[in-house]
Amino acid sequence: MNGIRHLFIPGPTNVPEEIRRAMNIPMEDMRAPDFADFVLPILADLKEVLRLTHGRVFVYPTSGTGAWEAAITNTLNTGDRVLMSRFGQFSTLWVDMATRLGLDVEVVDVDWGQGVPVADYAARLEADKKHRIKAVFATHNETATGVTSNIAALRAALDAANHPALLFVDGVSSIGAIEFEMQDWGVDLAVAGSQKGFMLPAGLGILGVSDKALAAHERATMPRCYFSFDDMIRFNDTGYFPYTPATQLLRGLRCSLDMLLDAGMERVWDRHHRLASGVRAAIAEWRGCSLVAQGPQWHSDTVSAIRTPADIDAREVIATAYSKYQTSLGSGLAQLAGRAFRIGHLGSLNPVMLCGALSAAEMALRDAGAAIVPGAGVAAAQEHFRATTAPVQSRPAAARAA
Amino acid sequence: MNGIRHLFIPGPTNVPEEIRRAMNIPMEDMRAPDFADFVLPILADLKEVLRLTHGRVFVYPTSGTGAWEAAITNTLNTGDRVLMSRFGQFSTLWVDMATRLGLDVEVVDVDWGQGVPVADYAARLEADKKHRIKAVFATHNETATGVTSNIAALRAALDAANHPALLFVDGVSSIGAIEFEMQDWGVDLAVAGSQKGFMLPAGLGILGVSDKALAAHERATMPRCYFSFDDMIRFNDTGYFPYTPATQLLRGLRCSLDMLLDAGMERVWDRHHRLASGVRAAIAEWRGCSLVAQGPQWHSDTVSAIRTPADIDAREVIATAYSKYQTSLGSGLAQLAGRAFRIGHLGSLNPVMLCGALSAAEMALRDAGAAIVPGAGVAAAQEHFRATTAPVQSRPAAARAA
Amino acid sequence: MNGIRHLFIPGPTNVPEEIRRAMNIPMEDMRAPDFADFVLPILADLKEVLRLTHGRVFVYPTSGTGAWEAAITNTLNTGDRVLMSRFGQFSTLWVDMATRLGLDVEVVDVDWGQGVPVADYAARLEADKKHRIKAVFATHNETATGVTSNIAALRAALDAANHPALLFVDGVSSIGAIEFEMQDWGVDLAVAGSQKGFMLPAGLGILGVSDKALAAHERATMPRCYFSFDDMIRFNDTGYFPYTPATQLLRGLRCSLDMLLDAGMERVWDRHHRLASGVRAAIAEWRGCSLVAQGPQWHSDTVSAIRTPADIDAREVIATAYSKYQTSLGSGLAQLAGRAFRIGHLGSLNPVMLCGALSAAEMALRDAGAAIVPGAGVAAAQEHFRATTAPVQSRPAAARAA
Amino acid sequence: MNGIRHLFIPGPTNVPEEIRRAMNIPMEDMRAPDFADFVLPILADLKEVLRLTHGRVFVYPTSGTGAWEAAITNTLNTGDRVLMSRFGQFSTLWVDMATRLGLDVEVVDVDWGQGVPVADYAARLEADKKHRIKAVFATHNETATGVTSNIAALRAALDAANHPALLFVDGVSSIGAIEFEMQDWGVDLAVAGSQKGFMLPAGLGILGVSDKALAAHERATMPRCYFSFDDMIRFNDTGYFPYTPATQLLRGLRCSLDMLLDAGMERVWDRHHRLASGVRAAIAEWRGCSLVAQGPQWHSDTVSAIRTPADIDAREVIATAYSKYQTSLGSGLAQLAGRAFRIGHLGSLNPVMLCGALSAAEMALRDAGAAIVPGAGVAAAQEHFRATTAPVQSRPAAARAA
Repeated sequence: MNGIRHLFIPGPTNVPEEIRRAMNIPMEDMRAPDFADFVLPILADLKEVLRLTHGRVFVYPTSGTGAWEAAITNTLNTGDRVLMSRFGQFSTLWVDMATRLGLDVEVVDVDWGQGVPVADYAARLEADKKHRIKAVFATHNETATGVTSNIAALRAALDAANHPALLFVDGVSSIGAIEFEMQDWGVDLAVAGSQKGFMLPAGLGILGVSDKALAAHERATMPRCYFSFDDMIRFNDTGYFPYTPATQLLRGLRCSLDMLLDAGMERVWDRHHRLASGVRAAIAEWRGCSLVAQGPQWHSDTVSAIRTPADIDAREVIATAYSKYQTSLGSGLAQLAGRAFRIGHLGSLNPVMLCGALSAAEMALRDAGAAIVPGAGVAAAQEHFRATTAPVQSRPAAARAA
Repeated sequence: MNGIRHLFIPGPTNVPEEIRRAMNIPMEDMRAPDFADFVLPILADLKEVLRLTHGRVFVYPTSGTGAWEAAITNTLNTGDRVLMSRFGQFSTLWVDMATRLGLDVEVVDVDWGQGVPVADYAARLEADKKHRIKAVFATHNETATGVTSNIAALRAALDAANHPALLFVDGVSSIGAIEFEMQDWGVDLAVAGSQKGFMLPAGLGILGVSDKALAAHERATMPRCYFSFDDMIRFNDTGYFPYTPATQLLRGLRCSLDMLLDAGMERVWDRHHRLASGVRAAIAEWRGCSLVAQGPQWHSDTVSAIRTPADIDAREVIATAYSKYQTSLGSGLAQLAGRAFRIGHLGSLNPVMLCGALSAAEMALRDAGAAIVPGAGVAAAQEHFRATTAPVQSRPAAARAA
Repeated sequence: MNGIRHLFIPGPTNVPEEIRRAMNIPMEDMRAPDFADFVLPILADLKEVLRLTHGRVFVYPTSGTGAWEAAITNTLNTGDRVLMSRFGQFSTLWVDMATRLGLDVEVVDVDWGQGVPVADYAARLEADKKHRIKAVFATHNETATGVTSNIAALRAALDAANHPALLFVDGVSSIGAIEFEMQDWGVDLAVAGSQKGFMLPAGLGILGVSDKALAAHERATMPRCYFSFDDMIRFNDTGYFPYTPATQLLRGLRCSLDMLLDAGMERVWDRHHRLASGVRAAIAEWRGCSLVAQGPQWHSDTVSAIRTPADIDAREVIATAYSKYQTSLGSGLAQLAGRAFRIGHLGSLNPVMLCGALSAAEMALRDAGAAIVPGAGVAAAQEHFRATTAPVQSRPAAARAA
Repeated sequence: MNGIRHLFIPGPTNVPEEIRRAMNIPMEDMRAPDFADFVLPILADLKEVLRLTHGRVFVYPTSGTGAWEAAITNTLNTGDRVLMSRFGQFSTLWVDMATRLGLDVEVVDVDWGQGVPVADYAARLEADKKHRIKAVFATHNETATGVTSNIAALRAALDAANHPALLFVDGVSSIGAIEFEMQDWGVDLAVAGSQKGFMLPAGLGILGVSDKALAAHERATMPRCYFSFDDMIRFNDTGYFPYTPATQLLRGLRCSLDMLLDAGMERVWDRHHRLASGVRAAIAEWRGCSLVAQGPQWHSDTVSAIRTPADIDAREVIATAYSKYQTSLGSGLAQLAGRAFRIGHLGSLNPVMLCGALSAAEMALRDAGAAIVPGAGVAAAQEHFRATTAPVQSRPAAARAA
């Protein structure tokens, strides 16, 4: 009766009505003879979203964190040297996991607000003539800072050094939303989750695996069972799973894939760019605020992290938005706690939703004492959206085909 | 994937998630022994929403139009003189119905933008010493113009004239949203529909009937069957219906009544006033635009009809909002076609939703050529909402009671 | 946690998951520019279900009772003589309505257990040389007794007498389930409801109208407004409605029409016959029980009314089925109260559901003291279903089209 | 339109309407300030279902298999000796996992149809004076064979030997359905999944952990990250999770816990026993068929595995039930493939549903050539249900509290 709650965190994202309906189903028999007819096209279509023609894709009942682990334990060995970088909460957690799983992590620390240090990586790879580095890790989109890294450039660096290391990419908050070319970029392990660009509830970890990674898997000896590629491959090849799959989410994933591929990935990426640009146009008008991302080359089209003015506690902005304006904004994590808040702008969104979100942020900022001009950001976003929005094609009437 | 569609017409209104869930049920046996345990409290609680302690309430599977007809055919006789007024599309349609059903309608035409002409009615009632006028009709909230009339004053006029006419009130777009005191105001027949303040889909016509109207019913001879009070009374008294009721909507109505009465009607009315004031604050900033309502005494807290600048076709604004910004605004009806659009602000709404709606209207107005300042209205609404919004109480955690 | 409730009343029927999903939607703007693209195909497809190529179909937010009233008030005049027959609760109620609406009803009373007395009607029509009878009414499927009448034969009788009377048919519990040929049978007004063969919740009254009935409408003068054909025709022609339609049910109806027409009406009718025959095979094994229908020519494929043994109160059977076995059976109405119960077998059903229903009835009958053999009826039904059931085609995998 | 599909596999089980509704929600912010108010009672109530007052419970976004792995990797060390037994597909898979994760598994092979060999275990524990066995594993309910083991007796054996080994119990298909007393039985690690007794979709792995197991965790050094107790404990203590939880399933779990605890675990167990006994009464009438379970002491109240007559391929029975009767039965796994089928009878079920399932099985058995008497099993089940079923208490009317 008090209207909808507004969700503008960078995942879980808003689930479209179509997907909600697709998931609202009775349970089904995951060993039924026609279940494979449902599963196999999902696996094929996931590869299309990842832009992968070779290799495989795995869908685990897990979170993105679980898919990180699946990637590591299936392709690397204890003590393997890996090259990683830290520039936000999620890249930091990945380093932490790699360390705990027994890898020999060579970490490059980068200012929060920048991304994967390609030049630095290039130098290290060049120097690693003995190929002691077995894998290079890159967080494509650091969700904590709103920073997108250049994976194509990283691939170029690997190629320039003629380095055989596997390329691991965390695409949890990028895949399905911004440009991602798994095959063209030579990504070997791409990690995604259901609750971001796929517009589903959390619960599925999605993993793209190149042929090269599958070959590495043959030599990988870490203990693993739940996340084992072997079991998955054996069952997936027939259209089934080694243990009870999350069929409800798979039904939702079917719908998500239809939506993404019917639109076309390029159009999906373009839509995210237009929406994100409108949000950034608004932020630019907020006196005393600035993006955490240190320059346009790092701008993320899925999430913006916004530094509040020095005297404004971002936590108060977030708390007010939540309790007074029924709006969830993302919090500043770790070193950004109290200093930044985040607006998630990925998944199923449109300009009017974002004007609402920006209004919530403006009201909460002013309530917290920020001296921004009311409506200034919304006005800039409106003008941006007016200039860049095409009429949405009317959904075809739900009539019977002739 | 393109986000939600935004619905800001004055009904059907946005259905809260709780009500959607309550309606998503298997069918049930409307003759089951415990069905009465479900029906009887609904009828009692509806009276509480209408502020009626005597009399009865009827729930028909029909629209508000059907409930209009039920009110007339059950309590009046062919040729009865009735006093009505016309000041918008819906009051006009009610006059049309009364005429077609054979009443002798004395119509007072009023400028669109004003409401029930109480002084004029008072004079006519005073003059009607022989009490030839059997009923006085009032459209409480004219949905086409965003005008609310003063029913308490009308009752005072009837009392002053010591006139026995029945008082018919169309409360379709007022009941459940703005102040309505059926018993205190001496309303004899109050018409409501499910799709406005009750936040349900269309499909239920709701009719409050005073004891005086029930007595009139005893003498009323128009042919009627589907809408007959007699059948309804006989079955309702036991908790059942004379024909298959719309149980799905009744389940939704149960949830709606819980929401309204748990909040308390005064708080519901107050919330609508706060939201409507914010919308009006925005409109006041739109250069060249003005409310159709001719003064604050007519302001409706459920819908605002907005005249566009003279050179701007309101139909273009509405069409652009719909196709480009996925936002449904209400159209200008009859003499307002092309000259006004409407924003519905009743039912399940909150400030951030309205900031979105106002943004859609601003963008569409500017696209149509209106020289309004981007964000100006939203800014005024933001400041109004900041000043008048209290934090929403966190929903009690869905934990088990001790 | 105690499993599903089992619904085997003759309407509302079980709503398929597809339709439940189709109805679980946000509200929409019934004046949107593309709403007509949704409405017009529904009206066209409804005619296909009714087997009508000329004429029109109307969809009212009402019940079947309301559609009865719409048929009468739009095409007949006060005092018109009509020929009707009574052989169950619903045919009785229709006579009652016709009388209350001021028609001069010539009633033929028939034993409950038989249907429309075609020979008797034929004689009366033959005798009515002056054509004082303006309309002939027939209850196609009497829901209270499980009796289906022969409408084709009635048409033949009208033709043989060369009689111009309009033919009104109550198809509430037949249309969408058993053979119904509106045009071939020369039906002028066919009444249906959403909650039977259309597998929807109650709330829509559906009315098929022949060209001849539309012509009669031009001369019909009963007061009417809500149910007026004129308003409907004017708006429907453009794809809209004269007042707020029940869009949620229309979305469900769209899905229902897809299901019916994708299967093909003949296959729908055939399926109902196979299921009904299985139920009747079971009943034949229940010692002391018998169908109310007096012979195979009256057997209804949508509902069976079953007389209990003389010393068994059918109300106890129904009450036990409901409270102990979570199963709703239909009650015996009026003169059948306590003497019969009913099993609805129309809509979305299959053999295993019916074996459950028959088990519930067997257990409840034995609990009430009936000396039937446990499982005897189910066994007969099983063997019937084994012989007549073809494997259900696996639903096409929800994969993307190439 | 062809009615519901019937699901009688031993999980995923039928999801009650209440739970489906509880899961049909928009996404929410898992870092919201009031999210902890939702999470903490879930963890507390889960302990109540497990009958655990000390220790902790963990909820992972994973399957039961993942929870198996979490239990092992968090409390044991590579090379630890563990005592396990194999008597069905799932106990076999658990042995396989333990082996792959580097444990030194002492396996006892038992005839499929029996359960945990308590006497054998007792002897080995008695002999293990040096306490080289670090853990004893028991599959409480072997889903593949329909065999329930005696965990209380196993605890007694451990106590008699004064043996300190941890007791691991796979309760995936028992917890929430049949008696399970984690604390009283001294179970140290209890594994459950969402899709069985909890009546939810698959996707949550639930793990009960005793204080003793938590102490063992302090000394356990296997690599782990996703399943790490440490991260979970740190976040759970504040009501949050270390990574994005599956909030949709948690909302369903909230509803499931309410249903289980409102009924009371004893009544839940009793209901499963009554339903299972009815199924076994039916099977006893099927000539040539027999339970896989070798005696009443092994009978499972959640699933029955049924050997088909020697000349009947169980796969054909299952395929026919699926394609012709829209009914999913469980298949015979591994050595039981083709020789047995299974009926799951856990979760949200009632007698009439089971009479349907038994009818499906009877028809499919006869179609496959089995010489069983039609209806014989259903008849026995009916008589059993008649004798043991109490009327279901009518749900309290959904009226407002006074």
